[in-house]
Amino acid sequence: MNLSSKLLEDTVNAFSRLPGIGKKTALRLALHLLQTNTDEVADFCEAIIKMKENIQFCQHCHNISDDTSCTICLSPKRNQSIICVVEGIKEIMAIENTGQFNGLYHVLGGIISPIEGIGPESLNIDSLVRRIESGRVKELIMAISPTIEGDTTIFYISKQLQDQNVNISTIARGVSFGGDLEYADEFTLGRSIVSRVKYDQ
Amino acid sequence: MNLSSKLLEDTVNAFSRLPGIGKKTALRLALHLLQTNTDEVADFCEAIIKMKENIQFCQHCHNISDDTSCTICLSPKRNQSIICVVEGIKEIMAIENTGQFNGLYHVLGGIISPIEGIGPESLNIDSLVRRIESGRVKELIMAISPTIEGDTTIFYISKQLQDQNVNISTIARGVSFGGDLEYADEFTLGRSIVSRVKYDQ
Repeated sequence: MNLSSKLLEDTVNAFSRLPGIGKKTALRLALHLLQTNTDEVADFCEAIIKMKENIQFCQHCHNISDDTSCTICLSPKRNQSIICVVEGIKEIMAIENTGQFNGLYHVLGGIISPIEGIGPESLNIDSLVRRIESGRVKELIMAISPTIEGDTTIFYISKQLQDQNVNISTIARGVSFGGDLEYADEFTLGRSIVSRVKYDQ
Repeated sequence: MNLSSKLLEDTVNAFSRLPGIGKKTALRLALHLLQTNTDEVADFCEAIIKMKENIQFCQHCHNISDDTSCTICLSPKRNQSIICVVEGIKEIMAIENTGQFNGLYHVLGGIISPIEGIGPESLNIDSLVRRIESGRVKELIMAISPTIEGDTTIFYISKQLQDQNVNISTIARGVSFGGDLEYADEFTLGRSIVSRVKYDQ
């Protein structure tokens, strides 16, 4: 793209390094900021810098937090005896939005993937084991992606916890709500038949 | 969306004020910056702030520029006797990318639109008239959107210049290259028949 300004070009390049933002979108965003008043642009940058400088990770569950402990871990309304294990922060937000879970979380920071060189030691598994060893947790819900890597991770964690008195469950896998059976892949459909549940009104 | 961090929330809100960026995309971008190293994030913000503080508009054509005159106006390779009149900066980029135009530009900064309260006095029309009055310009190409507002703007400018010795042309309007006649709207198709051109190989 032929831009007559180096300053504009730098901003376009900066935006296009973000995920899912191509050159054309980056240009649109840069031109928008160019037409926005200076105070708003300063606020935009300040929000990013402040977040980057001050955000912390919760010492208990590794969720993002404005303090050393996150609001979920500190809440007295939360059920302290159930922990939902997730890959990342986004999954916490997704589960929170369902309003169906009232326990605590534990962020692994990824899943075991030998191809990408991610071993158990680079995940927050030790701290999870310590939380279970404290004895207050009765159930661990594994909300991990239904992939080979996800299953490996669940298997590894369950091995680490086999001497502990804790129930481990995984989230249900099956046909999506509102989904069409015709288009469900055979693996998902097969599994949803094998793990069928009793019908009750 | 339930975010456990005010700092993250501020950044998500900042991103979602940009055009075409919804809450979900804003969250993805904010989380991406959270995982990017601090130097890169600082570079990102610096590029924006620098652009905002230092960018100027060319004194001749009102294109964006790093200096008081833009690189196009200053280039000795450009044909100084043709000016292409455009609505905004984006149109200059689009025309430059075609590689079919070697003259100068003039950015109006919009088109006449009574509904949006944009009159001729809020556009860069006076400076265009002065450029023509200097006598060096032989042709004016109107590359303005083919809308009622666009046509009004072209008509207004041509009225202002009726005493000047300058040829005014508009870019060709017709069926798009690669377009299907079946799907062209009747107005465009009708106009492309009326303004048919002689076939030569």
